[in-house]
Amino acid sequence: MLHDEFEWIKSITPNSSFQKELVTGIGDDAALWSVNKEMDQVVCVDTMVEGVHFTKDTLSPYQVGYKALAVNLSDLGAMGAIPQFYLVSIAISKDWNEEELGEVYKGMAHLASKYKTDLIGGDTVSTKGPLVLTVTVIGKVEKGKRLLRKNAKPGDSVFLTGVTGESAAGLQLLLKNTRHHHFSSDEKQLISQHQMPSPHIEQGRILASSALRISLNDVSDGIASELNEIAEASQVTIHIDENKIPVSPLLARYPKNEQLNYQLFGGEDYVLTGTVAQDQFEQISILFQKHSLEIFEIGKVGEAGNAAVYLHRNENKSPERITKQGFNHFRER
Amino acid sequence: MLHDEFEWIKSITPNSSFQKELVTGIGDDAALWSVNKEMDQVVCVDTMVEGVHFTKDTLSPYQVGYKALAVNLSDLGAMGAIPQFYLVSIAISKDWNEEELGEVYKGMAHLASKYKTDLIGGDTVSTKGPLVLTVTVIGKVEKGKRLLRKNAKPGDSVFLTGVTGESAAGLQLLLKNTRHHHFSSDEKQLISQHQMPSPHIEQGRILASSALRISLNDVSDGIASELNEIAEASQVTIHIDENKIPVSPLLARYPKNEQLNYQLFGGEDYVLTGTVAQDQFEQISILFQKHSLEIFEIGKVGEAGNAAVYLHRNENKSPERITKQGFNHFRER
Repeated sequence: MLHDEFEWIKSITPNSSFQKELVTGIGDDAALWSVNKEMDQVVCVDTMVEGVHFTKDTLSPYQVGYKALAVNLSDLGAMGAIPQFYLVSIAISKDWNEEELGEVYKGMAHLASKYKTDLIGGDTVSTKGPLVLTVTVIGKVEKGKRLLRKNAKPGDSVFLTGVTGESAAGLQLLLKNTRHHHFSSDEKQLISQHQMPSPHIEQGRILASSALRISLNDVSDGIASELNEIAEASQVTIHIDENKIPVSPLLARYPKNEQLNYQLFGGEDYVLTGTVAQDQFEQISILFQKHSLEIFEIGKVGEAGNAAVYLHRNENKSPERITKQGFNHFRER
Repeated sequence: MLHDEFEWIKSITPNSSFQKELVTGIGDDAALWSVNKEMDQVVCVDTMVEGVHFTKDTLSPYQVGYKALAVNLSDLGAMGAIPQFYLVSIAISKDWNEEELGEVYKGMAHLASKYKTDLIGGDTVSTKGPLVLTVTVIGKVEKGKRLLRKNAKPGDSVFLTGVTGESAAGLQLLLKNTRHHHFSSDEKQLISQHQMPSPHIEQGRILASSALRISLNDVSDGIASELNEIAEASQVTIHIDENKIPVSPLLARYPKNEQLNYQLFGGEDYVLTGTVAQDQFEQISILFQKHSLEIFEIGKVGEAGNAAVYLHRNENKSPERITKQGFNHFRER
């Protein structure tokens, strides 16, 4: 749930209890509460709607299931949590037959088995509208190790745990051609990043286990949006350097501006972005190398008190302020 | 999730882990897992779809929210659990404006405040179809006190924690006249049972706290259906006595057969039904009296080994077997 949504709901329900002290992570995409001396429980929920988040031309039924769970697991990754269970609520339209529905569950089960995450419940109902798939994921994280957006401080390094932009470029190919088109090998890889993203659970666990002060977010709406959320939650200015943002070789054939737009504003990458004290980035980087995982330093946190994100394009130009929106014309959400 | 749904999903996803030993309540409408030495965590999810579970003619937006949470809390009640948190995922159609959506959240918040249950997250998306509202409720129950369907044994008393049939009669009035009709005082009460059912959380807690062997289910699909679920889970025969099933005074004007149909098959009553050893029913009954709550003994558990439910109408007729379905013509679910 976005912070703005939460504040809106709170404003219209003034009599509700909202015992914030019970739930410390609220306002981020996942919430958590204490269950014992060692661990906190974490929960998050995400919904995918046919015709809004996917169509039968962009995702196969198997991929619909896979992605619905991946998106949720990514929220857990951004908290540094260990996935444990999931529940699936599905509103089924007449356009989906039993075999297709079976594929949806297989897609979820495949990804779930990788993380030993068990399906423990759900609800199956019919709808006269498009398919609506809601996944609730439950995980746990060691007390005090949860990673939140509000932890960024001046001088921190800004990092990214993978390349961005591939998913959005893949989606554009799908919207233009449908998934039944004969794509090149490079195109297939781009499309695959959109259809079956890998949640960065392991990366989140490494960051949480480091016990360092880290701010973190998963890249669902693009780096620009996620870093603005960290800037707002932490009340700091963030500066990122165009030359440091990793470019996917698969995007090499795209014009430079289009590349940058995908990288910053594309979204649905489900890598992690965040901040750590500058003198500790090296330590984090070595930990990632040990696990054969990527991490890139893409900028710095500037001063406190003014929430904003700036892109430094090159030495001749002054930095450009980038907002959450950027260009977002292919996403209705 | 129904047991049949769960078995189907398991059958199509043979490679998934489904570590049943981690989750002991699975197969009932709620699942639970251990979090510390004293308590288990409980979770359940339910979805309400416009045009299937309600229309703008049967429920106001406020009532849509109220009922969506009530239905979920009822699942917790059937486990004897204490509600703690809820998450709301809503797919919004263009037919719903912001004021109406605010009412949906107010309806939930009103009921939630009664049980000190906090909204801790959710997701808000758009849909081109009807409104889909998914609520996830999280609660806790003392270890070993959870109440499951499989606990019934021969000789047990069968009980019911309130009258049934009012909700279904109320729905019929709504389908015929819409909620904007000028109803009589009695009719308003029937309609209210359909629109804003009270989950039997307190009753579930009394039963769980008794530490007796109790089987329990909430009446979402009618007594006939719920008792058949207990009969199947416990592998016993259940006998209920027409004369002992409490009749709502609000149903007095209906023909006897229509009354009985509503009572047995109507559904959406959200009272609790279950079994307890015959010599302990009196003890339970006194506990309920102390809390000014109703409990009725409506029959007995017969022999083990053959799952079935029988209705005894009077001394001259042989008992009739009643199935889950009964008549169910006004419910699509």
